[in-house]
Amino acid sequence: MKIIETIAEMKAARLKLKGSVGFVPTMGYLHEGHLSLVRKAGEENKSVVVSIYVNPTQFAPTEDLSKYPRDLNRDLSMLEKEGTDIVFFPSDKEIYPQGYDTWVTVDKLTKPLEGSSRPTHFRGVTTIVNKLFNIVRPDNTYFGQKDAQQALVIKKMAKDLDMNLKVVVCPTVREPDGLAMSSRNVYLTPEQRKGAPVLYKSLMLAKDLFSHGERNAAVILGQMTTLIKKEPLANIDYISIADTETLEELRTIEKSALVSMAIKFGKTRLIDNLILG
Amino acid sequence: MKIIETIAEMKAARLKLKGSVGFVPTMGYLHEGHLSLVRKAGEENKSVVVSIYVNPTQFAPTEDLSKYPRDLNRDLSMLEKEGTDIVFFPSDKEIYPQGYDTWVTVDKLTKPLEGSSRPTHFRGVTTIVNKLFNIVRPDNTYFGQKDAQQALVIKKMAKDLDMNLKVVVCPTVREPDGLAMSSRNVYLTPEQRKGAPVLYKSLMLAKDLFSHGERNAAVILGQMTTLIKKEPLANIDYISIADTETLEELRTIEKSALVSMAIKFGKTRLIDNLILG
Repeated sequence: MKIIETIAEMKAARLKLKGSVGFVPTMGYLHEGHLSLVRKAGEENKSVVVSIYVNPTQFAPTEDLSKYPRDLNRDLSMLEKEGTDIVFFPSDKEIYPQGYDTWVTVDKLTKPLEGSSRPTHFRGVTTIVNKLFNIVRPDNTYFGQKDAQQALVIKKMAKDLDMNLKVVVCPTVREPDGLAMSSRNVYLTPEQRKGAPVLYKSLMLAKDLFSHGERNAAVILGQMTTLIKKEPLANIDYISIADTETLEELRTIEKSALVSMAIKFGKTRLIDNLILG
Repeated sequence: MKIIETIAEMKAARLKLKGSVGFVPTMGYLHEGHLSLVRKAGEENKSVVVSIYVNPTQFAPTEDLSKYPRDLNRDLSMLEKEGTDIVFFPSDKEIYPQGYDTWVTVDKLTKPLEGSSRPTHFRGVTTIVNKLFNIVRPDNTYFGQKDAQQALVIKKMAKDLDMNLKVVVCPTVREPDGLAMSSRNVYLTPEQRKGAPVLYKSLMLAKDLFSHGERNAAVILGQMTTLIKKEPLANIDYISIADTETLEELRTIEKSALVSMAIKFGKTRLIDNLILG
């Protein structure tokens, strides 16, 4: 496994890779969710490149950039075991040199949900991912369904800008009690961790209501809200039932819908989602 | 010479090109300025791709999109003579399908000069050029020095986003009386056309002052302004002496400077520039 820290070396190494390249961009502190993407990339491609980069431009000044969890050695040993070919691990200076001035934005699709709570977040995400796509030039790239809006936004960017790759979205990986795996779960106190599966429980409730014929979004959201409010440590940032492509809020679910939410436990903000239909 | 109208066909044709590809993006209504870029691309590459697309997103609603001059047959015959391999001639629907939502912006560098007079212009330019780069995947791409800020902005975008190509900037091509070639020169009435060389004359004045040791930007700008105001049909939009990389206005010229201007003759806006030093 090669570890590369500069863009120039990554580009040179990329030229030497023959056959299809699968790429998994990460912010490190890897868990089974990331590894499921790396495995999928391995199944579908000749070579696998994983990037580890905690991208500052997707954090607001009030957010957790400086305390975002990091453990490079553990990450590298996990990636080595998965047969990763190249780990790209650049510095901030390498990615955003003095005078950096170019931004990629997806407009309407980044306004609701996560974008509403984190207005500068997706501009950072699309910019770094665009750069990484140009540096790594993957044939296929892998994102988790857990960050549902992010996956849609990346797909939209790749399509709109005619980028030469396929964006593959992989299922959310969960703890045995249903909590979606996330690097941020480490922030939870033992008490908060006990309450955190309420996100998954409320999604299962939505699924159950939908499978019994409920199509009124307000009714489903109402019952989910009641359930979440029973968990005293949980504070709702948003719960949404939206169109799976445009992310516009739905009143009535026709064929399908994205049920998604952000719930705060203290300062820790957890997100989860499920597609109905 | 192949003429291609869809992105899918252009991408397929690109895959068949062996060796380096030179790319000249244009809005058509070609003149010797464009052809000098096509020739340079031919000298430096195995294959040459030229795009003809009047990009609506770089025109403000008040600007000349609908009356922008077009003559496809003439363009094609000129390109054929130059040995162009592929002409990419997409429709608006192909480039900006329903729901198009992604934008590439260069921030600070697009604020002064042209960006100050045309605040949405460069967002359109960088977005279309980014798309065209992804579709054509050139090794080298050719822009004219006449649009000095555009050339800098494209270079900045390509560098910041780590795009895999080289941006080559070629000298301005001029009419015998010094007027920079431009598709928009066709708008000029015979009287306006007679006065239009005042842009070039004022640049030559700046060059002369500089070569005689003048380094005070205000002095040079003052004399240029006086000269231009002698031309009764000319209305100054801006005249600038700026840093050649950041485009920040200079008080004193140290090593080099970009002298640039936009001058209106009736509704027709002409631009020109020169690098001192």
